[in-house]
Amino acid sequence: MTRSTAPTTSRSPFLRDFDALSGFGATSRGGVHREAATEADREARDWLAGRFAEIGLEARVDSVGNLFGCADWVPGAPYVLVGSHLDSQPTAGRLDGAYGVLSALHAADRVRDEVAAGSLQPTLNLAVVDWFNEEGSRFWPSVMGSGVYAGILNAASVLDTRDADGISVREALEMIGYLGRNEAPRAAAYAEIHIEQGRELEEAEVPIGIVTGNWSTAKLLVRVHGEQAHTASLMADRHDALLAAGALVMAVNDLVDAAPAGELLTTVSRLDTYPNVPGVVTSHATLHVDLRSADAEVLNAALDALRTGADALGERFGVRATLEGLSVRPALPYPPEGVALAEEVATRCGLASRRLLTRAGHDSIAMRAVAPTVMLFVPSRDGLSHHEREDTLEDDLESGVDMLSAVVARLVAGDLTMPAEETRS
Amino acid sequence: MTRSTAPTTSRSPFLRDFDALSGFGATSRGGVHREAATEADREARDWLAGRFAEIGLEARVDSVGNLFGCADWVPGAPYVLVGSHLDSQPTAGRLDGAYGVLSALHAADRVRDEVAAGSLQPTLNLAVVDWFNEEGSRFWPSVMGSGVYAGILNAASVLDTRDADGISVREALEMIGYLGRNEAPRAAAYAEIHIEQGRELEEAEVPIGIVTGNWSTAKLLVRVHGEQAHTASLMADRHDALLAAGALVMAVNDLVDAAPAGELLTTVSRLDTYPNVPGVVTSHATLHVDLRSADAEVLNAALDALRTGADALGERFGVRATLEGLSVRPALPYPPEGVALAEEVATRCGLASRRLLTRAGHDSIAMRAVAPTVMLFVPSRDGLSHHEREDTLEDDLESGVDMLSAVVARLVAGDLTMPAEETRS
Repeated sequence: MTRSTAPTTSRSPFLRDFDALSGFGATSRGGVHREAATEADREARDWLAGRFAEIGLEARVDSVGNLFGCADWVPGAPYVLVGSHLDSQPTAGRLDGAYGVLSALHAADRVRDEVAAGSLQPTLNLAVVDWFNEEGSRFWPSVMGSGVYAGILNAASVLDTRDADGISVREALEMIGYLGRNEAPRAAAYAEIHIEQGRELEEAEVPIGIVTGNWSTAKLLVRVHGEQAHTASLMADRHDALLAAGALVMAVNDLVDAAPAGELLTTVSRLDTYPNVPGVVTSHATLHVDLRSADAEVLNAALDALRTGADALGERFGVRATLEGLSVRPALPYPPEGVALAEEVATRCGLASRRLLTRAGHDSIAMRAVAPTVMLFVPSRDGLSHHEREDTLEDDLESGVDMLSAVVARLVAGDLTMPAEETRS
Repeated sequence: MTRSTAPTTSRSPFLRDFDALSGFGATSRGGVHREAATEADREARDWLAGRFAEIGLEARVDSVGNLFGCADWVPGAPYVLVGSHLDSQPTAGRLDGAYGVLSALHAADRVRDEVAAGSLQPTLNLAVVDWFNEEGSRFWPSVMGSGVYAGILNAASVLDTRDADGISVREALEMIGYLGRNEAPRAAAYAEIHIEQGRELEEAEVPIGIVTGNWSTAKLLVRVHGEQAHTASLMADRHDALLAAGALVMAVNDLVDAAPAGELLTTVSRLDTYPNVPGVVTSHATLHVDLRSADAEVLNAALDALRTGADALGERFGVRATLEGLSVRPALPYPPEGVALAEEVATRCGLASRRLLTRAGHDSIAMRAVAPTVMLFVPSRDGLSHHEREDTLEDDLESGVDMLSAVVARLVAGDLTMPAEETRS
């Protein structure tokens, strides 16, 4: 495999599409800013729907804005779904999600050709999917569209979820023309490809990652209740919620040192304070805490320490801290049959592969609950993610499309089907 | 003096006015939320202008929204200005600023009666004033209207200052009908009364504070530049601006312990982070730091330690921290002649008084630069300030009005005039 960053003089069809897609919500620093159901998201979706039409996929939009491009070969049969998401975090990279959707489009195009040529006999239909709002930055929670599809989230409450400006998901989807009425295609299998959110593949110089399971994630809200005061007030009289929040940010970071090396990730990602004006001591602070580990015991120990720490801070700073669980995603394996199938495919394609875990969440984690699922990674330069400089070598991008296409062909042929009850284990 | 919180069956004219004024922007918890040039501020101003008309004061509004109520007795003579501000911080108390404006109104009413009765011979004219935007929460900086009046701030740049929604001071004043065209009355002297932002008077059970000087205040902006990342990224790969900001919040608080006991106040009042969404490590944080001391050396030592601390944090967390001075208010005395005059008046009124310093900023600090100034305090329950439960005993409120009225009478008689060059020392 040639590893090169030199621009090719004649861009491949995939890279030309990638260039086009990267233009929607493009930032001046080479990234994209394309939060769910914004104008930039609409443009990207319209472009994708246009590409569906060009390659003969029928566009369908379900009631929570998931956009499907369907190829129907076997009347009444369920679908192989393949995709990811076009929405991004603020000032994020071009690849996160978008690479998975575009690879799915090109995989579907190739598989459709094979079916047309008679070299592939489909037992299932095929649909490319752009899941609505995987990122959860504008509308919380994340993994929204696939979460509803998989029955993990309730469609009605998702549609009522509001952004910071009070606009609901329903209204936002209506505004961009993606509040659909189609029934979502029923999944018999699911495949997704994504950039790795880490350096493992890059360091090993391996182009394909096969995801065997996910880290567990716990997301919590900590609310700190203090008292408003003048910044001229005596230190002893204060109940400064921001000071307690600052200590909590440090305490959350210190949890890492208390855990076995490399086994815990902690972040305070979002912090909101009130009244947040000069001249006034903060009365209220809300912190979004994000804890991740592959080991449930490590995660639980961190949660316990966080609870104890929050109580102690309350006393130390004369404030009250309350914890509220937002979500817990348990560490679970992807189906081993899918891993084995992907390894077989990689070997046939002449691509080195490596098993790994995902520390990040993906639509495939929701889908895994309702269909046998294959999750693939390609390397990401310096492990960058949610960053405008996110990048992957063009050869690796192309290898990923080849790999996904071959996996999808096997799924369409019916090579990965499992009783539904097994898919949750 | 009777100290009682029992509601009086017949409210005095002052308390009835105070009840009315407290209704504009009233919060459910007994405070007010009346930021500068908002609808609530307009209502309070309209009410005040109505009261001006009732007691025969001529309303004038200058080009930066300062509202004056003028009594002209001596053609061509300058004015004794007396007042404070009607704007408040978010979810703040009823007394801060409003008490000073209302006391000024009642003092003017009484002095006008004395002049009309011939018992007081004015050598100066008199104007009650509501200074625009003392708080600086919506439009930064604070002490805006009196700052322009005193030549400390530039009127043109003040009018171009924008709030978080992009609305300029000029636009906001136009919207509420207070972008005036009148020339501001020229000050020969200034008096202001305010609740103490501390417990000194309450603990001493003294109803009148006479302010002899102000603490020095340094306000700074610290900008932390990190890198955006996924919350699934490895700890070692991060450049987390919020983590560095949390450490800086703690470091700012620790400055207090490094200073002589009770001689330094420190606060991080406002913290803004980007992108401030779940799932993403923070790339940028901006902190408003507020340092206060009566002693310039203590303040300078804290500033030096803050600079060193910010540099160290940059290295520790792989971020870059830059400091930007916003404003420094030096510790300066109020004119001793004014202090002496106020002490004389208090004795004549039979009111115990006490000299003290103000740790907080006031319009009188700006006015002191251009006119001989008297600054008075009344006690505040538990030293609360910028808090909805701000409260002062009704007897103390009334004593303050008596005191201010007597001071204003002396000023109108010309008993406190100094050459302009002396007033800055």
